[in-house]
Amino acid sequence: MSGNEPVYGAGVWHFATYVDRYATDGYGEPRTVLDGIALAGSVGDLSVLDLNWPFPPGDISTAEVKKALDEHRLRAIALTPEIYTGRFARGGFTNPDPAVRTEAIELVAAAAEVGRELGVDYIKLWPGQDGYDYPFQADYADLWGKTTGALRELAQAFPDLKFAIEYKPREPRNRMILSSVARTLLAIQETGADNVGVLLDFGHSLYGGETPAEAARMAIAHDRLFAIDVNDNFRGWDDDMVVGSVHLLETFEFFFALHDAGWEGVWQLDQFPFREDPVEAARAGIRTMRAFHRALSYLDRDQLADAQARQDALAAQRIAKRALFRALAESETA
Amino acid sequence: MSGNEPVYGAGVWHFATYVDRYATDGYGEPRTVLDGIALAGSVGDLSVLDLNWPFPPGDISTAEVKKALDEHRLRAIALTPEIYTGRFARGGFTNPDPAVRTEAIELVAAAAEVGRELGVDYIKLWPGQDGYDYPFQADYADLWGKTTGALRELAQAFPDLKFAIEYKPREPRNRMILSSVARTLLAIQETGADNVGVLLDFGHSLYGGETPAEAARMAIAHDRLFAIDVNDNFRGWDDDMVVGSVHLLETFEFFFALHDAGWEGVWQLDQFPFREDPVEAARAGIRTMRAFHRALSYLDRDQLADAQARQDALAAQRIAKRALFRALAESETA
Amino acid sequence: MSGNEPVYGAGVWHFATYVDRYATDGYGEPRTVLDGIALAGSVGDLSVLDLNWPFPPGDISTAEVKKALDEHRLRAIALTPEIYTGRFARGGFTNPDPAVRTEAIELVAAAAEVGRELGVDYIKLWPGQDGYDYPFQADYADLWGKTTGALRELAQAFPDLKFAIEYKPREPRNRMILSSVARTLLAIQETGADNVGVLLDFGHSLYGGETPAEAARMAIAHDRLFAIDVNDNFRGWDDDMVVGSVHLLETFEFFFALHDAGWEGVWQLDQFPFREDPVEAARAGIRTMRAFHRALSYLDRDQLADAQARQDALAAQRIAKRALFRALAESETA
Amino acid sequence: MSGNEPVYGAGVWHFATYVDRYATDGYGEPRTVLDGIALAGSVGDLSVLDLNWPFPPGDISTAEVKKALDEHRLRAIALTPEIYTGRFARGGFTNPDPAVRTEAIELVAAAAEVGRELGVDYIKLWPGQDGYDYPFQADYADLWGKTTGALRELAQAFPDLKFAIEYKPREPRNRMILSSVARTLLAIQETGADNVGVLLDFGHSLYGGETPAEAARMAIAHDRLFAIDVNDNFRGWDDDMVVGSVHLLETFEFFFALHDAGWEGVWQLDQFPFREDPVEAARAGIRTMRAFHRALSYLDRDQLADAQARQDALAAQRIAKRALFRALAESETA
Repeated sequence: MSGNEPVYGAGVWHFATYVDRYATDGYGEPRTVLDGIALAGSVGDLSVLDLNWPFPPGDISTAEVKKALDEHRLRAIALTPEIYTGRFARGGFTNPDPAVRTEAIELVAAAAEVGRELGVDYIKLWPGQDGYDYPFQADYADLWGKTTGALRELAQAFPDLKFAIEYKPREPRNRMILSSVARTLLAIQETGADNVGVLLDFGHSLYGGETPAEAARMAIAHDRLFAIDVNDNFRGWDDDMVVGSVHLLETFEFFFALHDAGWEGVWQLDQFPFREDPVEAARAGIRTMRAFHRALSYLDRDQLADAQARQDALAAQRIAKRALFRALAESETA
Repeated sequence: MSGNEPVYGAGVWHFATYVDRYATDGYGEPRTVLDGIALAGSVGDLSVLDLNWPFPPGDISTAEVKKALDEHRLRAIALTPEIYTGRFARGGFTNPDPAVRTEAIELVAAAAEVGRELGVDYIKLWPGQDGYDYPFQADYADLWGKTTGALRELAQAFPDLKFAIEYKPREPRNRMILSSVARTLLAIQETGADNVGVLLDFGHSLYGGETPAEAARMAIAHDRLFAIDVNDNFRGWDDDMVVGSVHLLETFEFFFALHDAGWEGVWQLDQFPFREDPVEAARAGIRTMRAFHRALSYLDRDQLADAQARQDALAAQRIAKRALFRALAESETA
Repeated sequence: MSGNEPVYGAGVWHFATYVDRYATDGYGEPRTVLDGIALAGSVGDLSVLDLNWPFPPGDISTAEVKKALDEHRLRAIALTPEIYTGRFARGGFTNPDPAVRTEAIELVAAAAEVGRELGVDYIKLWPGQDGYDYPFQADYADLWGKTTGALRELAQAFPDLKFAIEYKPREPRNRMILSSVARTLLAIQETGADNVGVLLDFGHSLYGGETPAEAARMAIAHDRLFAIDVNDNFRGWDDDMVVGSVHLLETFEFFFALHDAGWEGVWQLDQFPFREDPVEAARAGIRTMRAFHRALSYLDRDQLADAQARQDALAAQRIAKRALFRALAESETA
Repeated sequence: MSGNEPVYGAGVWHFATYVDRYATDGYGEPRTVLDGIALAGSVGDLSVLDLNWPFPPGDISTAEVKKALDEHRLRAIALTPEIYTGRFARGGFTNPDPAVRTEAIELVAAAAEVGRELGVDYIKLWPGQDGYDYPFQADYADLWGKTTGALRELAQAFPDLKFAIEYKPREPRNRMILSSVARTLLAIQETGADNVGVLLDFGHSLYGGETPAEAARMAIAHDRLFAIDVNDNFRGWDDDMVVGSVHLLETFEFFFALHDAGWEGVWQLDQFPFREDPVEAARAGIRTMRAFHRALSYLDRDQLADAQARQDALAAQRIAKRALFRALAESETA
């Protein structure tokens, strides 16, 4: 095998139930973060979790979470402060109301304190409500300044912690400020901080028109790839489908890019199984990731490097497919 | 003016608040259908409403709704049975569980009874959960048969009522069965029923890759355009923005197509003002629709017909713009 | 194996060189249809060809083509009259100039005569210039009538031949009239002819927002699937990439749908290897198609039917993947 | 009026004829650069031209071009070296063959010499063939390094000239390296050069999923907006339609962003009138741009700033529309 098996993780929301604007009564009974941790524990291959904070549904203590994590042999790799709820419908870091903006920053700060206590690797920032919906609605320079200002403030307040920004093209806002890897890297530059980086979500990159492997290379070249999430979609929306259910080659190429660059972080799921069993969905995702890992060990690097040096698409695809299909076949027939 | 002012309508959900998968606590305090009717009444230019049924939040009587409508001088043009809630997460008409499928059909039948009582023009069918999410998940012939079977059954059970199908490419399912005007017309053909038609939502058509004016012509040619909804979006998702906020020319072309074909239904809003004042959003939409109506009277039909006969894009656009810009300018400076 | 090996075919343009609006000097030296036939013959697994007509570059006789086909043990499965060149820039069947429209119809008629002589299975109609570019440019009912009128006229003039319409969402026109499977089926209905059907191009379906397997089921249900083409793309444009280079699962699902419905036509390539060796590109496409064929024999139909009856995405995907990955692995390591 | 009338320009290819992969015989008879200059001169409102180099069809001297420009009272604002023809099909700056890569750089250098002689404002770089087509085809870090290396080399060789990079998401390559404003700014940073900037093409930005006004603000904030091009499209491809034929509000917002930031460059057309009269198409584009310019003078800046400070979409749209519709109405009825 090509090095050790990666650590597998997931966002705990993978094990939640969901609502949307039509099924307002929900896709199943609500689950608390403790329910989610228990389900995550039953997957059998997960080692770490990214946890929403305040812990859903809001009244669960850090001690309870710690206990549940220990019980299920899981570790909190990250906290995700919920700066995208109804309170922040008109923006978190970019809210036009200074009081609400401050609240968003303070919510992150509070999450950072809890994160320290839990020993997380990073605080995840997903400013999903920071954007705009209509032409002419916003002063883009103002939104940008408010965003980078909040990032700088938080980075300086918690120099011992890392902040990982999960960029996304849109949803819930029609347009988000931090919408691509390159825009996010430019924003990070402006903070002047070392402890702010990128969480690259494969699906966000894909439906944003990027090539995820290329985006990963760029973030790594800037030494800012703090974390990744994987899932899949139909390239038009953040469908958060099971890994490898549509884009097998491009997902494998993404993991190849990480591996080739020596990146050694957690291989983490961000799936939303609206109508599927979440434990089975997680197992399906991990099974495929494990096949990717094995495929990396089958890959003939010299041949691939040679084909890529010639930019020979047919040869490079064939080399990649040979390794991938062998590992996938083994995985599915095991 | 080119004929009488149209009747303006809206879906009552225009005046609701919303949740989504992130802002699960909602974009504002919940509102009942009675609240919605009152807000609709305050717009001042709305005459008819399409109402979700059971009336939100579920325990409101038909008598109460009638009274509220009367009070606000509104009429129920349609009922929309909620066959897309959590109960029907895995499908309404196409649910793999026959009991749930029957429930969906019975829900529509119950709505039809109430609709008769309220004297609506049509029962709207929006089978938003009828579709699939993953490659290989479904037997497409089976989904199609279940869909057309349910439509046929309902059409025959209520021969005195009309059913209008609102097609949509996707959301909440990754793929919907009735996803385009042509597919919906083919489904209607198979029902063999006269009382099933199309509700053409401008935004659905637009982000589904159709030209809405062309789709309208097709539905009219088949004598099946039962109703329309308008809104706007960025062509990649059902953003349900205010009419004319992005696609002024194409929306005007859509109304031109309706008018030119002698179609005389209600001009109806299907906007979702997540973060905007719903009454102001409705007024903005109606203001623009009124300008379109006026622009139709300014349009030089002979010149346009001549330019279109030559397929002369520059000439045709200029003729359309001259009428449109004049009306829009008058509208905004009034 | 699940039945006999399919017949493999290609459009002869697969072996041509190309120009585009930037590389006006071309992606390689021009090739005649005879050059193309020779290259196709060297692939080794191709049995039939779809040939542009007039035979490129325009001065090659039917006898010469026959001889070349014989020499390379190939058969002409179809002719594609070139009703999309500069002469028809403003439309073939829908050209506003009646003389040019007649010319387009006559070009097809002349191709039909040659097709009879060559014993083709069908005349392919790809009205790529029949559409529009700007809002308000065209009278959609007029374009539709001109299209169905031309189809009817041709179908009646050649009752012994079949005409297969290759629908496509766009390119070279910004919008094409026959843009989806359902629209095309409605157009065919209007012709009242039995000998007009659909050529379903996988890539056109995919980037048009359809699920190709679902589109195939629909065309088959109407008994109008005359032919198919395969290739791949990034879902936003007709990239005409090598089969299976991006969408392995959806392409396999497409062939499964054909097979499951008992459809027995040719498995045909429509790839444009702009910068690749065309013979190697064809071999890569056929290698993958052959793996799909083998995977069909590995597929546990009962299990799949059972999972699809439950609409169980995870189970159905696993069953499909097991068969597919086994066959792909065998294919690549052979 | 809000300041002086802008200078209007166009790419001389606006007045060319085109080929594509289907109409290989072309959309009209070929025209030389001299024909193009003459047609541009007849528009009446154009002052400057961006010229392909070598001057089409390739054998026209700088002296001849100078003379034609003088005769038609036009000035060359830029030269665009043709590093995207068949010779560079597999890449210009990123060609895997070092000799071809050198040729591309030398072609730009030769254009720069001619540009000096003509007194252009900038050399435009559009590396349209620099990208990739298939997953796994390329080593992205290598493509990036070759791109930035070529840019640095050229910038240093011509310190007295400016180079403006026109980024684009794709076409002719399936994916381009310099695909967004943010990626391009990061590439420019790596060159360490002051004389490399961005040419922002409105249509490229739009179909790349950016908000063009926001992209413009970002380029200006980095002091790198060297030039702009405008046109329109349906948001899925580089349709190069006439300005304002689809996205009136977003194009106006784009010009507002430029004006608000004090940017004072040329307002330049990049339209491809495949089937339209090029002189009329240019006039239509300029008429709309002139209306935008006038609308800027009607815009209530204080009100707009106030609405944007509240991020009030309805209010901001209304203010913008009032100014825009007035100017457009005046423009069309003039």
